[in-house]
Amino acid sequence: MLAEIITIGDEILIGQIVDTNSAWIGQTLNARGIQIHQITSVSDAPEPIIQAVNDALSRADIVLCTGGLGPTKDDLTKHTLARMFHMKLVRNEEVYEQVRRMTALRHIAFNELNQSQALVPEGCTVLPNRCGTAPGMWFEHQGKVIVSMPGVPFEMKVLIEEQVLPRLETYFHFESIVHQTAITYGLAESILAERIAAWESALPASLHLAYLPSALNIRLRLSAYQVDRTTAEAQIAQAFAALEQILPYNILGYGDATLESAVGALLQQRGESVATAESCTGGNVAHRLTALPGASNYFLGGVVSYANTVKESLLGVDPEILRREGAVSRPVAESMAEGVRRITGATYGIATTGIAGPSGGSAEKPVGTVWMAVATPTETIALKMVFGSIRQQNIERASSNILNLLRLQLCGAPNHGLDTLQY
Amino acid sequence: MLAEIITIGDEILIGQIVDTNSAWIGQTLNARGIQIHQITSVSDAPEPIIQAVNDALSRADIVLCTGGLGPTKDDLTKHTLARMFHMKLVRNEEVYEQVRRMTALRHIAFNELNQSQALVPEGCTVLPNRCGTAPGMWFEHQGKVIVSMPGVPFEMKVLIEEQVLPRLETYFHFESIVHQTAITYGLAESILAERIAAWESALPASLHLAYLPSALNIRLRLSAYQVDRTTAEAQIAQAFAALEQILPYNILGYGDATLESAVGALLQQRGESVATAESCTGGNVAHRLTALPGASNYFLGGVVSYANTVKESLLGVDPEILRREGAVSRPVAESMAEGVRRITGATYGIATTGIAGPSGGSAEKPVGTVWMAVATPTETIALKMVFGSIRQQNIERASSNILNLLRLQLCGAPNHGLDTLQY
Repeated sequence: MLAEIITIGDEILIGQIVDTNSAWIGQTLNARGIQIHQITSVSDAPEPIIQAVNDALSRADIVLCTGGLGPTKDDLTKHTLARMFHMKLVRNEEVYEQVRRMTALRHIAFNELNQSQALVPEGCTVLPNRCGTAPGMWFEHQGKVIVSMPGVPFEMKVLIEEQVLPRLETYFHFESIVHQTAITYGLAESILAERIAAWESALPASLHLAYLPSALNIRLRLSAYQVDRTTAEAQIAQAFAALEQILPYNILGYGDATLESAVGALLQQRGESVATAESCTGGNVAHRLTALPGASNYFLGGVVSYANTVKESLLGVDPEILRREGAVSRPVAESMAEGVRRITGATYGIATTGIAGPSGGSAEKPVGTVWMAVATPTETIALKMVFGSIRQQNIERASSNILNLLRLQLCGAPNHGLDTLQY
Repeated sequence: MLAEIITIGDEILIGQIVDTNSAWIGQTLNARGIQIHQITSVSDAPEPIIQAVNDALSRADIVLCTGGLGPTKDDLTKHTLARMFHMKLVRNEEVYEQVRRMTALRHIAFNELNQSQALVPEGCTVLPNRCGTAPGMWFEHQGKVIVSMPGVPFEMKVLIEEQVLPRLETYFHFESIVHQTAITYGLAESILAERIAAWESALPASLHLAYLPSALNIRLRLSAYQVDRTTAEAQIAQAFAALEQILPYNILGYGDATLESAVGALLQQRGESVATAESCTGGNVAHRLTALPGASNYFLGGVVSYANTVKESLLGVDPEILRREGAVSRPVAESMAEGVRRITGATYGIATTGIAGPSGGSAEKPVGTVWMAVATPTETIALKMVFGSIRQQNIERASSNILNLLRLQLCGAPNHGLDTLQY
């Protein structure tokens, strides 16, 4: 069972928004056994939309379109699909009422633009949108299905989960795809590849391995196509159990596990807590920890000590050490971690201090230099890393590395886990 | 001058990564007058790659491919392009040396996998990659250009800026596209559309208006195609000057302006500073402020007061008020904003406290309820908003709204800017 995704909108092609819808749809459909064959992004214009839909229909059974359904003049998806399927636009009373209700709820005028949202191609199946004013539309054509949905991610997601997937499952019978992904951290791709080469060669022929690298976080995905689900799941579980023997501290979890979810799960298991003291990461470590539901069970809070005065007054860093060693130094990182642990009462304090860039570096401490520290109930571990020259990347990498350093302590890795890092 | 982008990788189709490369390439090429006609994502397999490249060549003059150039077995782009263009793979000594140097620098073994990065299709132009081991490759075919680049965003960006764009400008002569985008905040799309309808109708015929909505942040883009650049720029500037008269406090800036860059610029102009006290936003406001270079000129730091004990001990929130009113309340938000202003010495303190969800709501304070406050040298302004049920969205919206509330104070909007919000 093959599907294609078409995202429609000039704003995607000129790069004013990043298309996050496709990744979400890809994940969601894959989990149900529907494989995405291609993703296509085209402009808000009739010809590219028609060509993209026709091309997708020539290759796939399901074509999911997002975008171009707004009330304004530059949105043309609905009119174009109506033209393709020789349907005229008619007012749908249910949608009309929904738009009227939503505009009233939001105290927005129920004007002509909003009312045009209730026009739908006659003969399509309307998928009511309880979160917005543009409904989804379901077309059937020569045994294939075309669905048009709004581009607003939240509205699209609710439509897919509540309406599109159940309808697809009724309409088609799906082949089985089994995926599982191990998330590794701390090894460069070529090192990882070499270290697991024998394991890879010994994999059953039915399993396909893919490397999915992103910065220091390399995911190893095993897939089995058109196989018995139970057998494939057992084979994949066995293969990953063997992999854990080879890389005991570099696998942080499976599926959608992240450094922050791994750390959160370990803290929760142990009934422990963490607090953050951030300089160069500027709140990003706290943000990543608190993006997860339930973070309040183990995250107490933190201090973003951007100015040195804040390092001194809130975290109790000695001004003399700051003066002598500079803010980007081992003793300052250690003192920040210990300070935030002390003032919040958390089990662990974690700290970052570095030069995010693009300016502010020196010969001795170039841009990208970051000191990190973890204060535990018994000791404080510090680590220096030198990343690159890109501010956003330095912030992300420092955030990831301090979370990983905490994870390695929580796992009880030998030598504080420092031996597990090779990149 | 039309280009197409092809991003190659199973990880994109199964949604394990979001394709951010395309948006960046779209922005960068547009600024040089190259229009992106289509973006296509295909899997790491020869047939889809060949079809996508051939289809793109049938429509566009330039085809930019990213991804599938890693050293591991599942990466097939290089072999597929060599096959398409009837070239054999040969070792490139310059790339070989670069891979040797990079692996040495990173203390990584110079193994067979790495060495295979030095194999390139004979006859293509190699674009050396100073940031990684996979080089870019430039192919010319019947007057058109195909470029293959690694999928790692940073490596791809450096290749495009340093090598691909200069080569394209030599190879082709470009038509002129002029874009400018005004960033509005605080008005729902239909309200905005109605309020600017007369302005829109009065636009010169050569200007094309597009709405680019994303949550509460709606961008209005004016474009002119195939026109004299100077005339188009003047027309666009004049149109936006007229728009500013209609929406004086809802336009936060132009181009890539964001709430945080607008706030940063205003603070810097005024020689003032800000500090953050975050509960439900968990550090995201500080993170967004510090993602910008130069943030240390106006951002002093902040407290993430996730646990109530941290609100009391670090920010001085009265435990009695916390008990009586609850953490999500006007007096707690006000006290947090005033507290962080006091302890850091910043000109402004900004605070958020709310229920991010998915759980923790009540009938009186449903999930998505957020109190925000700005403490200025003379007064404290508070605002309650009720967002939705999605944690990540609540965090982002609360972060955006507190930044906007500060922006409105810095702009001197009448009635604290509260009249400018309608959504």
